Amino acid sequence: MAEGATGRRSRITPEREAELYAAVLDLLREVGYDSLTMDAVAARTRSSKATLYRQWGGKAELVVGAMRHGKPVRLDAIDTGTLRTDLHALVTREDDCVMEQNSALMRALAMAMHTNPDLRQAFREQLIEPEMAEFRGLLQRAVDRGEIRADCPALDFVVHMLAGGFAVRTLIEGQPPTQAFLHSYIDAVVLPALGVPTS
Amino acid sequence: MAEGATGRRSRITPEREAELYAAVLDLLREVGYDSLTMDAVAARTRSSKATLYRQWGGKAELVVGAMRHGKPVRLDAIDTGTLRTDLHALVTREDDCVMEQNSALMRALAMAMHTNPDLRQAFREQLIEPEMAEFRGLLQRAVDRGEIRADCPALDFVVHMLAGGFAVRTLIEGQPPTQAFLHSYIDAVVLPALGVPTS
Repeated sequence: MAEGATGRRSRITPEREAELYAAVLDLLREVGYDSLTMDAVAARTRSSKATLYRQWGGKAELVVGAMRHGKPVRLDAIDTGTLRTDLHALVTREDDCVMEQNSALMRALAMAMHTNPDLRQAFREQLIEPEMAEFRGLLQRAVDRGEIRADCPALDFVVHMLAGGFAVRTLIEGQPPTQAFLHSYIDAVVLPALGVPTS
Repeated sequence: MAEGATGRRSRITPEREAELYAAVLDLLREVGYDSLTMDAVAARTRSSKATLYRQWGGKAELVVGAMRHGKPVRLDAIDTGTLRTDLHALVTREDDCVMEQNSALMRALAMAMHTNPDLRQAFREQLIEPEMAEFRGLLQRAVDRGEIRADCPALDFVVHMLAGGFAVRTLIEGQPPTQAFLHSYIDAVVLPALGVPTS
């Protein structure tokens, strides 16, 4: 098969790609990032290591690709007409059960990132930066609608606020927040900080 | 020496306790929580394991005791007269360099907590809950002064907001926030969410 417009990814079908990514996430849950080897991915998915390296370049890129592929709804698909309903939709992209699974994965990856600069870079470039760009779009629409003042200083910190909602309960109670908790948090913290009335 | 009013801690001097705690933190940085053994602590500090167990009960309590002992200023010593200056003082308890060292320790412990329920419990009981009680006192004084409305919904989430300020930069950039960043964050996010004017 010739390389097409989508680059090196064009060599495998979307179905095969989904299968590979699912296997990578399973392995990650089983052994963690540091013990995950390309050999194990190749064996589990019956592919050759050469194929894996050709398609993804390396373990970090493969793992981050799998994380990104698992996201159920793209952020830029959220456009409900108000900031409040957009933010509520954002935190209900994943149901509580999926959120708990992903939280465990993210925890393991967060730890691995501190000792693997290549994982941190892939994570930032392939996952954080694209999501941040989409998220800035969501906020800009609220500014354009006149919901948030363009010079509101909290605009630079919306991700920090939301992350705090996730992190504290995860850290102290050992489990991620529920959707109900996150909705309360958005109404009590994020919208007031942005100067947006909640009712 | 008889056990006094302070309970089992009375058996050793404060200087000796400080020495033991410093050794525990050094070992934690060197080998991490899971590989830290009471044998290693005993060897490093030239004490007997029996003494360590008698004084602290176990590894989790010893490690959390050492973390708590390292805190430079108790939260309830902060009472500057306004919420804004209290919060700014809160995040400047540790200078940027100490913050970076502690951040690395906290990261390692946060990970260990997920697989060690006894560590999570000791951390919550000996460190989080006492600090939270002191922090609620700080917020209550702001309510009493009329700075925050008593029914402000963001009052329940101040710790979450602050934690978000710490977590995002740590996670994405691999280093903790600077004091300057945290001061901006408090002014842009925490005070507006609480309905407190920042100037």
